[in-house]
Amino acid sequence: MRDMFHEELEGINTSLLGMAALVKEALTQSCQALVNADLATAEKVIAADDAIDNTQHDLDARIINLMARQQPVATDLRVLVAALRISADLERMGDLAHHVAKLARMRYPNKAVPTELEATINNMGTTNERITEKMITVLQYRDLTRALEIEVDDDEMDKLHRDLISTLVGDSWTYGIESAIDMTLLGRYFERFADHAVSISHRVYFMVTGEYAAEEK
Amino acid sequence: MRDMFHEELEGINTSLLGMAALVKEALTQSCQALVNADLATAEKVIAADDAIDNTQHDLDARIINLMARQQPVATDLRVLVAALRISADLERMGDLAHHVAKLARMRYPNKAVPTELEATINNMGTTNERITEKMITVLQYRDLTRALEIEVDDDEMDKLHRDLISTLVGDSWTYGIESAIDMTLLGRYFERFADHAVSISHRVYFMVTGEYAAEEK
Repeated sequence: MRDMFHEELEGINTSLLGMAALVKEALTQSCQALVNADLATAEKVIAADDAIDNTQHDLDARIINLMARQQPVATDLRVLVAALRISADLERMGDLAHHVAKLARMRYPNKAVPTELEATINNMGTTNERITEKMITVLQYRDLTRALEIEVDDDEMDKLHRDLISTLVGDSWTYGIESAIDMTLLGRYFERFADHAVSISHRVYFMVTGEYAAEEK
Repeated sequence: MRDMFHEELEGINTSLLGMAALVKEALTQSCQALVNADLATAEKVIAADDAIDNTQHDLDARIINLMARQQPVATDLRVLVAALRISADLERMGDLAHHVAKLARMRYPNKAVPTELEATINNMGTTNERITEKMITVLQYRDLTRALEIEVDDDEMDKLHRDLISTLVGDSWTYGIESAIDMTLLGRYFERFADHAVSISHRVYFMVTGEYAAEEK
């Protein structure tokens, strides 16, 4: 019975990794749609969000079913509880990529991002791609050292977010209020996306050690 | 053993209600701090957020401990899984009230909200207070009819949010970019707060019926 349990647990981890791959693709494509005012790619991300939501529902059902049938304790139970939480974070990351794509679509055929902010927004996008790649490594190999690196990348994201706000309130901002609102929300989406990746790395920490990561206390 | 289980489950529900009461207090006080530029009240909300976070950690530890010891199945397991998720939503609602209080503190001794938006922001605050009260009733009595009312209140919140954005991009907005950024973020905090209350009512629905609410599918 225990072998069967670990086989199913392995299947759940594989599904989490699959969900993370979908989220990474949604992020990359939403950034492309945003930077290039690419409507087709924006629509692709928007349509793909249902797949992420469905994966979460299926995965949660499997996790709860496994809990009920196998009645795990200690580490095995912790791993399943962490999996439930990780799927919720991934679902939310998918939502945030979806919001980015919707902004690109809303401003099409114009580019949503003014020239003056292109570099900052590109940096936020690539920082999130880097964070997501590391998060996938953390999920796959339970690599706690790599988990710590995500904290550093998240600090970089916070810095970029401050740069963004400084540009918006600076004298050289000539793109008006509507664009400032767009960029404020976009900054928030990117920042929250990174927060969820940090949260997932904390959950892996909890899964492995049974303790909360220091930052979360 | 089963009686002991239900006694502990009752204790967990009581803690969830206690946590919801803390969140409601944080919301009410953060709105007061915002509207009256009341620094002392803002500081109170900011300091109280740790209590909400600690309640979540304690509660989650108790839930996982109860799962491990009693190995519940079917409805009992669903209730515990839902409790884990509800505590996460409540924790996030506390964070959002905390963000509102921090905005009030950042703009002190000025009022963060310009006169032109006072009515809309007050309405968003009272809508969230109403939503939170109903959410507490749903949690306490598993009242699915009341859960549906929250959806209607949430639609009202979305309408207020659209009004807010219309005011910001309208010709009569004379408060500049910085205030527009503040109000954009504030609108987002209030809207997300309501979303989490909706999510909690969906989780109660799942807890009672074992099915996802239609809106969540």
